[in-house]
Amino acid sequence: MKKLEKITPQNDDFARWYTDVIQNGDLMAYGASKGSIIFKPLSFGIWDNIRLTLDKEFKKVGVQNVNLPLLIPESLLAKEKDHLEGFNPELATVTEVGGKKLSEKYYIRPTSETLFGDFFKNEISSYNDLPLIYNQWVNVLRWEKTTNPFLRTREFLWQEGHTMHSDGEEAKELTLKMLKIYKKFVNDYLAIPVIDGEKTEHEKFSGADFTFTIEAMMKDGKALQAGTSHYLGHNFSVPFDITFKNKDNKLEYAYGTSWGISTRLIGALIMTHGDDRGIIIPPKIAPTQVDILELFANKEPKVHNLALSIEKTLNKVGISTKIDDSDKGAGFKASNSEIHGTPLRIEIGPRDLAENRILLVRRDTLEKFHVSVDDVKETVKEMLNDIQLNLYSQAEQRLLNNLVEVHNLDDFKKAISEGHWVITNFAGNGEDEIKIKELTGASSRCIPFKLPIKLKDDKCFFSNKKTKKCVIFAKAY
Amino acid sequence: MKKLEKITPQNDDFARWYTDVIQNGDLMAYGASKGSIIFKPLSFGIWDNIRLTLDKEFKKVGVQNVNLPLLIPESLLAKEKDHLEGFNPELATVTEVGGKKLSEKYYIRPTSETLFGDFFKNEISSYNDLPLIYNQWVNVLRWEKTTNPFLRTREFLWQEGHTMHSDGEEAKELTLKMLKIYKKFVNDYLAIPVIDGEKTEHEKFSGADFTFTIEAMMKDGKALQAGTSHYLGHNFSVPFDITFKNKDNKLEYAYGTSWGISTRLIGALIMTHGDDRGIIIPPKIAPTQVDILELFANKEPKVHNLALSIEKTLNKVGISTKIDDSDKGAGFKASNSEIHGTPLRIEIGPRDLAENRILLVRRDTLEKFHVSVDDVKETVKEMLNDIQLNLYSQAEQRLLNNLVEVHNLDDFKKAISEGHWVITNFAGNGEDEIKIKELTGASSRCIPFKLPIKLKDDKCFFSNKKTKKCVIFAKAY
Repeated sequence: MKKLEKITPQNDDFARWYTDVIQNGDLMAYGASKGSIIFKPLSFGIWDNIRLTLDKEFKKVGVQNVNLPLLIPESLLAKEKDHLEGFNPELATVTEVGGKKLSEKYYIRPTSETLFGDFFKNEISSYNDLPLIYNQWVNVLRWEKTTNPFLRTREFLWQEGHTMHSDGEEAKELTLKMLKIYKKFVNDYLAIPVIDGEKTEHEKFSGADFTFTIEAMMKDGKALQAGTSHYLGHNFSVPFDITFKNKDNKLEYAYGTSWGISTRLIGALIMTHGDDRGIIIPPKIAPTQVDILELFANKEPKVHNLALSIEKTLNKVGISTKIDDSDKGAGFKASNSEIHGTPLRIEIGPRDLAENRILLVRRDTLEKFHVSVDDVKETVKEMLNDIQLNLYSQAEQRLLNNLVEVHNLDDFKKAISEGHWVITNFAGNGEDEIKIKELTGASSRCIPFKLPIKLKDDKCFFSNKKTKKCVIFAKAY
Repeated sequence: MKKLEKITPQNDDFARWYTDVIQNGDLMAYGASKGSIIFKPLSFGIWDNIRLTLDKEFKKVGVQNVNLPLLIPESLLAKEKDHLEGFNPELATVTEVGGKKLSEKYYIRPTSETLFGDFFKNEISSYNDLPLIYNQWVNVLRWEKTTNPFLRTREFLWQEGHTMHSDGEEAKELTLKMLKIYKKFVNDYLAIPVIDGEKTEHEKFSGADFTFTIEAMMKDGKALQAGTSHYLGHNFSVPFDITFKNKDNKLEYAYGTSWGISTRLIGALIMTHGDDRGIIIPPKIAPTQVDILELFANKEPKVHNLALSIEKTLNKVGISTKIDDSDKGAGFKASNSEIHGTPLRIEIGPRDLAENRILLVRRDTLEKFHVSVDDVKETVKEMLNDIQLNLYSQAEQRLLNNLVEVHNLDDFKKAISEGHWVITNFAGNGEDEIKIKELTGASSRCIPFKLPIKLKDDKCFFSNKKTKKCVIFAKAY
């Protein structure tokens, strides 16, 4: 068991707070190759729960899991020009094996549209073969210059869905359906509120006709793209020659989509809920939901028996637990539970035994409750539920409070520099977005589906052109 | 839905039979890069079931899942010389990113002992930190010259366990414990009998003190290594400086193990149970346990209602099903179910409705049974159980019948050329094993823990030296 180090307070330095809590919370270690991380049991446990939960939702809408190779032959990736250009600077390239140069280079997949394109071509011949709704849970590599654990690492884990349809409208609907599944999951399990919308032309995926996104707000006010869903139209079917015979026996190109979420959701979870004592994991996704701390058990062996009996009771109703029966002091054990983000802890000492009660401590509010041993099961269930809801509503309140309406560049700059998201009318193009980023550090996050605020103006804050298009800008991870 | 092609009979050409059934059974497609395969939904579903089942067993003995990076810096892999030499010719090497040469090369992991070594070094300081029992489910790459789908592919999926202990005996026990978990799983779920034992010095893992293995026999008589568990001793702790303070406050090197199974188990399953109609998937690992075929449903819509009601009944007791309500003929539907290896199928036609019965067809024996609709649930449950046991006992009988005792080189050659495994006394070394392989094509599979046959001699078949060491040799995948 590691010594607990001091955590930098969030308000002093949010970036240092982040690296302090993920290391103290035993979430990760730095990998041997630069920009890579090791997922330790706690963070991998969260990812495993994300995978298991989301995979069930996918299967309900007919998604089938497959697994495609890691390496993309050079010639294959070059088939879709925008796509190649978008990813080229970040491509890790295999050029030799056992010291001998290969005749063709291979890229480690940064994403797999081209591999799926090549696969789909051979799988599809008639409208009867469609739709194909495939997904894979894999690792991908993008050689990023600046990295940040979980949020932006050279290698990350994700799921990438890839589909083909005989009908463009059906494909568009699926793009939206998958985004809704992401939104519901991120809301309900990770307790993270998001704003859903469409990316601007400038921010869309390299190779997509359009990209939908869910955007989350971290505690420092920065935005984090939490999941995306892309309508690819014919962009991959044409270069990969993915055609099908329609009902009139005529050849048509199929319509594609792709969509993904990644291990950066773990970073999002930490920066949405964590506090100065460490991380806080929402109960519905926590690998351990309740820590059971034995206090002064060396003086009273019955403490251990009660801990075991409570563990059994809770496990029976599907609540996961971990007993701390180490010889550390009470204060250490409490801090240790807090720093690992376990949503609820139970403390059992010799005095509690006599009174047939235990102490419950919530991780989110730090409130303490004495509870009769007989009521433990029901109280824990209710409290876990309450913690889940409380984490969500706190984050939602913060999101709404931190969203500022602006209508000129000065107000825009001021709001962004104060850590706000801005919502504004915007009629600009990609070049304008690049200028805005240079001036303010903010990028466009999305054109929201539903306006969270009714705007008081209809002129572009940047060009003054009349426009009803409403865009959210923020600094982002 | 694809047209079904003719399958080459097993006895005509086993290798062609294998590629015929895996392609007809929609298990895989060839990937864009040479030597790689795409896991289609059926084979990935089997792998997912393997992962979920085995992961539960791992957790029962305290295994924790982690995830380490894909890339190994050149300098790191070079730290253990035998290990590097063993893998060097097969290492895919990343030398550039976005067209620019890197200052250090990276290898794509062929296995992760070195990465874990580097990780463990920083995690361990005292005996209190031990044991560490970690595992990861990941992809690895070995640039094989000759490949065969599932059995030997350049990229494959596997789990690799890596542990460190304060005590060598404890580490050795764990090595054995994990092999037992593999054996039980392969027996009980994949219905594959195995012989467990130790690898010879020549065949052990590059970097291990000794390697335990389970060896399975395919229908063509060849052996397949189905799982291995290695005792690493100090081989990685010394070069990686993995030390701990013992109870006397003195520094000691920790003791390591590693163990793994891979997607080649899917190949093993196919070549153990498949027949001339296609693959046969054991019920306990099958993604779909029962196909429900609607026959002539266009003439009698009630057929579909009965199919739905039976599906519901079976799903309720945890039996997975798939309904075929396509407009194909009865013969096509039956072949289609057989070729995909579904262990049991139910056929429902208009005549059955009138008699309140359905037809059950076992995939393993092809036996047909009329069953009253009221008895479907119980009969299906029993029959799935029976199929599982029957597949195992057929394979076990074959294994025992095909194991031949020999005591001289001529008999050895003859037995191997006839497709047998041989069991014999052997006192030779690695050079002898290389010669034997050149002469006969057979390699040593293991020194069995328990002799399946009591040997009649105690002289080495190759050197005539007196020895009690008993070794199994066979041609192998």
